[in-house]
Amino acid sequence: MRWADSFIAVDWGTTNRRAYRVDGSGHCADEFEDSKGVLAVGDKGFPAAVQEIRDRLGDLPLLMAGMVGSNRGWVEAPYVPCPAGLDELAAKLAKAGEREFIVPGVSYSAPDRADVMRGEEVQLLGAVATGQVEHEGFVCHPGTHNKWCVLHQARLHNFQTVMTGELFSLLKAHSILADLLSAPVEVNDAFRAGVTKGLGEEALPADLFEIRARFLLGKAKKEDAASFASGLLIGTDVRIGLAIPAAAEVMVMGRPELTKLYAAAIGIAGRTAIEIDGEKSFLAGITEIAKRIDK
Amino acid sequence: MRWADSFIAVDWGTTNRRAYRVDGSGHCADEFEDSKGVLAVGDKGFPAAVQEIRDRLGDLPLLMAGMVGSNRGWVEAPYVPCPAGLDELAAKLAKAGEREFIVPGVSYSAPDRADVMRGEEVQLLGAVATGQVEHEGFVCHPGTHNKWCVLHQARLHNFQTVMTGELFSLLKAHSILADLLSAPVEVNDAFRAGVTKGLGEEALPADLFEIRARFLLGKAKKEDAASFASGLLIGTDVRIGLAIPAAAEVMVMGRPELTKLYAAAIGIAGRTAIEIDGEKSFLAGITEIAKRIDK
Repeated sequence: MRWADSFIAVDWGTTNRRAYRVDGSGHCADEFEDSKGVLAVGDKGFPAAVQEIRDRLGDLPLLMAGMVGSNRGWVEAPYVPCPAGLDELAAKLAKAGEREFIVPGVSYSAPDRADVMRGEEVQLLGAVATGQVEHEGFVCHPGTHNKWCVLHQARLHNFQTVMTGELFSLLKAHSILADLLSAPVEVNDAFRAGVTKGLGEEALPADLFEIRARFLLGKAKKEDAASFASGLLIGTDVRIGLAIPAAAEVMVMGRPELTKLYAAAIGIAGRTAIEIDGEKSFLAGITEIAKRIDK
Repeated sequence: MRWADSFIAVDWGTTNRRAYRVDGSGHCADEFEDSKGVLAVGDKGFPAAVQEIRDRLGDLPLLMAGMVGSNRGWVEAPYVPCPAGLDELAAKLAKAGEREFIVPGVSYSAPDRADVMRGEEVQLLGAVATGQVEHEGFVCHPGTHNKWCVLHQARLHNFQTVMTGELFSLLKAHSILADLLSAPVEVNDAFRAGVTKGLGEEALPADLFEIRARFLLGKAKKEDAASFASGLLIGTDVRIGLAIPAAAEVMVMGRPELTKLYAAAIGIAGRTAIEIDGEKSFLAGITEIAKRIDK
């Protein structure tokens, strides 16, 4: 059996999973997505959850990435420290079974900082493998936890996580701002004003409350609040990210509805942003890792 | 009937209410607290909720403060703009009935800023009336939403809200950090390290995620995470507050378990903090307002 001839790739996150049947040339022949994320499957449910994937996509070896390799997942795949490339990831696969391998996450550790990622590394290094991201590139990967990633010699050299997406979700679902944040976020004047504030002097926990005060005092419209709040959080995130010494051009990778917001904010900060597709990069990265198993 | 001879004072918040029978000299003769806050009482429930208070404390006039005067309360009491003293508050009481008055909140509005408070103003100006806070004082009032208050000529001149308490609660209840934040917060080395980080260069949404990374990589202990996170948020809050031009000495008013944390953080920032009791100040303030109704 050669993995790279045909295998199933699974991007298995906390709340969702996406599975692909990958053919010998790294293309997706079939796929599905459902809400059986790591938390829904639970401790003992993985053998059955994997059988279900094979019933749908074929009796093939499985190469998995994401939270499935965390301490809440199936088998813990310890973090590979930076600098980490495809070779380092492939060398440290965790084996859940004879034909079930899990890609490790990546850690960054310095005297003054610590960080972890799990899942994004496959997309990131896949984009390097396909040439979408340069060997010395700088990548912004928004999501629940945005990752700013510095590449050096085609390996992940350093990264910083900013929990922007999660903070926005918490505020929208549970905070005193909740009833103000229901409108869709758009790149409009309110968003741009929020970005400018976030890029400037930092007083985030005060600026967030002011959204409510401005609305109550008739100084801002309710329909602008979500875009302003998102701009404020993303502007703060971009200020943190652009302080990292890295290439001038920022590749923004992820879902288009998020990458467009970050690309706009990076533009307001005076830097060039280029949006790239995260899903294609995942397939490229996981296929490269499968090839390395066969070597 | 003279209000100041005997009345019922109610500090009626979002989730709790506290009612006091106040005698002619401003002392509390009887009191109770329960969880019938504004949200629990609901739109139409106020007459019955008030009757219940009178059944327990006597058939007396009622002077209320807090969220009972908000758009989710009984009758909306519009904000009095800064500068606001006891005279300005007493002149703008909202009348829910012949013997049921509500103290207005206070707003601050400048071209570049907007803010609101509702409830804290009575404690604050009560502390000025009793001499605990000077006429040109500077007050930090922690709670769900911390208020930094600048007094001038015994009136509230300017203030800034920082939503520290609410952010900590959101993170503890609903975030990826939730299982790390269950320990009680204490003024220990982890708290002090968090404060120092929050007082310094600002990267709050990154520093919060790093709490998890440091734990996962074995660089920090789980039992220190809550104190560090609280210190980080309070340090950020104190950095924002101490940037306001005001008296050097900070009076910290509120519940002792919160004022001790803020006093410690203000000390780390190199300023003097003095803790004062919020409940006594509320009684002093509301009694002063009652006296002004009689004039």
